Amino acid sequence: MKIALAGIGKIARDQHVPAIRASRDWELAATVSRHGTVEGVESFSNIAALLDARPDIETISLCLPPVPRFASAVAAIGAGRNVMLEKPPGATLTECRTLETMAREAGVSIFATWHSREAAQVAAAKAWLADRRILRLKITWKEDVRRWHPGQAWIWQPGGLGVFDPGINALSILTEILPDPIHIASATLSFPENCETPIAADLIFAHPSGAQATAEFDFRQQGEQTWTIEIETTAGSLRLLDGGAKLLIDGVIQEVPCGANGPLNGEYPRLYAKMATLAGSRGIDMDLTPMALVADAFLLGRRVVVEPFHE
Amino acid sequence: MKIALAGIGKIARDQHVPAIRASRDWELAATVSRHGTVEGVESFSNIAALLDARPDIETISLCLPPVPRFASAVAAIGAGRNVMLEKPPGATLTECRTLETMAREAGVSIFATWHSREAAQVAAAKAWLADRRILRLKITWKEDVRRWHPGQAWIWQPGGLGVFDPGINALSILTEILPDPIHIASATLSFPENCETPIAADLIFAHPSGAQATAEFDFRQQGEQTWTIEIETTAGSLRLLDGGAKLLIDGVIQEVPCGANGPLNGEYPRLYAKMATLAGSRGIDMDLTPMALVADAFLLGRRVVVEPFHE
Repeated sequence: MKIALAGIGKIARDQHVPAIRASRDWELAATVSRHGTVEGVESFSNIAALLDARPDIETISLCLPPVPRFASAVAAIGAGRNVMLEKPPGATLTECRTLETMAREAGVSIFATWHSREAAQVAAAKAWLADRRILRLKITWKEDVRRWHPGQAWIWQPGGLGVFDPGINALSILTEILPDPIHIASATLSFPENCETPIAADLIFAHPSGAQATAEFDFRQQGEQTWTIEIETTAGSLRLLDGGAKLLIDGVIQEVPCGANGPLNGEYPRLYAKMATLAGSRGIDMDLTPMALVADAFLLGRRVVVEPFHE
Repeated sequence: MKIALAGIGKIARDQHVPAIRASRDWELAATVSRHGTVEGVESFSNIAALLDARPDIETISLCLPPVPRFASAVAAIGAGRNVMLEKPPGATLTECRTLETMAREAGVSIFATWHSREAAQVAAAKAWLADRRILRLKITWKEDVRRWHPGQAWIWQPGGLGVFDPGINALSILTEILPDPIHIASATLSFPENCETPIAADLIFAHPSGAQATAEFDFRQQGEQTWTIEIETTAGSLRLLDGGAKLLIDGVIQEVPCGANGPLNGEYPRLYAKMATLAGSRGIDMDLTPMALVADAFLLGRRVVVEPFHE
């Protein structure tokens, strides 16, 4: 099946292009970007030109920043194409629900992807937690924005999410592995005085059985980078490290399951395999729970102003 | 049917108690409040005491502020009672979805009420707009917080919504009457430097046919108070005034429909009539669209700090 990739930036080069190239399902038939291109692939400078020139390409993968993504998605669905959305699926919850409705009416597939849910040990963590009672839960998601998001000025503009751009990955794992629903009880968001989005956030969750549950997101981390979820239960403890790649149960590192080392190894290859299945069945997968938690944090959060951020 | 009212503050006295007393469906059998009581009605100081003492009361109407409402709703659903929620239905979107899931599993009714949708001319405005193409749309919702929300300190605390507490009424009407989906394209939120929620907000919506659509919310309005939605279409113009009570089409005031003057006259009487129907059929009505728009405004909004507010 032919696919086009719109938005040729860091995440497209680092993840999407290699995943599509390694896939048995997909052929990278075109790209859309104002500046970026992929060697050997036909390129267009805007989505309308692509949709007009290449009716043979049935699926469009959108990895533009969240704010401009909506218009491209509307154009693609309007032209009867399947759409795959990099996370977060849009700048607002309501626009994502509109896209879902449009896709349903047009009879095309739409997939709000959450790449961190495809990390190697997420499924194992979910299985282990399924019948356990949680006592304490702590998310620590601390990274150096200068190292991982160079030149991504949109992160600091309205709709760019700030530290929730990586933080939403933690929330996507959390909502996948927990057997119980969880919501945000309180939040403190730290906004640099020259930015429209937070550089750090502290969240306190409400858990139905009263478990103590917190998250700490920070974009200012020097030295060691941390993407960890720690959970204590009445029957042992779990540590999910490196964004879901490693799992420790009661301090013992767990083997990565066989499936995760097969031809679908890696987060993005698994996303593209899922998209192939969805496209084949006109399926819709638009779980917005991680994004609703982020919106809730903004809705409920205390705002603290901190020193300006300059890349 | 017996009903209990939890949260005896201004909105309970002004609206809920008279609506229940005028209803043929309901008998006000008890109240729950730390301080407030209603003359001649048994009162409890906490919801657990009510649920324990009065298993005969099958429905609980919650008009506490949004933050403490969740715990009461969980207790009521857990005790197998139907729940009616004053707007907004909670402090976060996610907790509202959790309540809906719990109610479904418990086989009880839950109703997220939007009283402004029951205003006398909302249904007529919806019918008039159904087959029209919108060119321009403007919401002006300006009121004096000191006059309408005396002593409601929770409005300025996290989760209290600030000017979105009345503004969500406009959004509930908007999402009821528009034939097309709409979402927030950009927002500016003005936070008093001593408050956690905005005192004013300017919203720009994205409309599928490119209509110019805006909303202006302000809590600092002196003199005339304004709750207006104005819509220009290719086939005439509409003005919905006084929060939906009055309707002008092409400048001509429209008669209030007969039904709106019958026994179900008034916003809250209609809400309680709907709750009676839901309770009779174990129905669920949890449209969170107005609240999602508010969360989106917080998520996407530019923050401006303005002078402190003191009641």
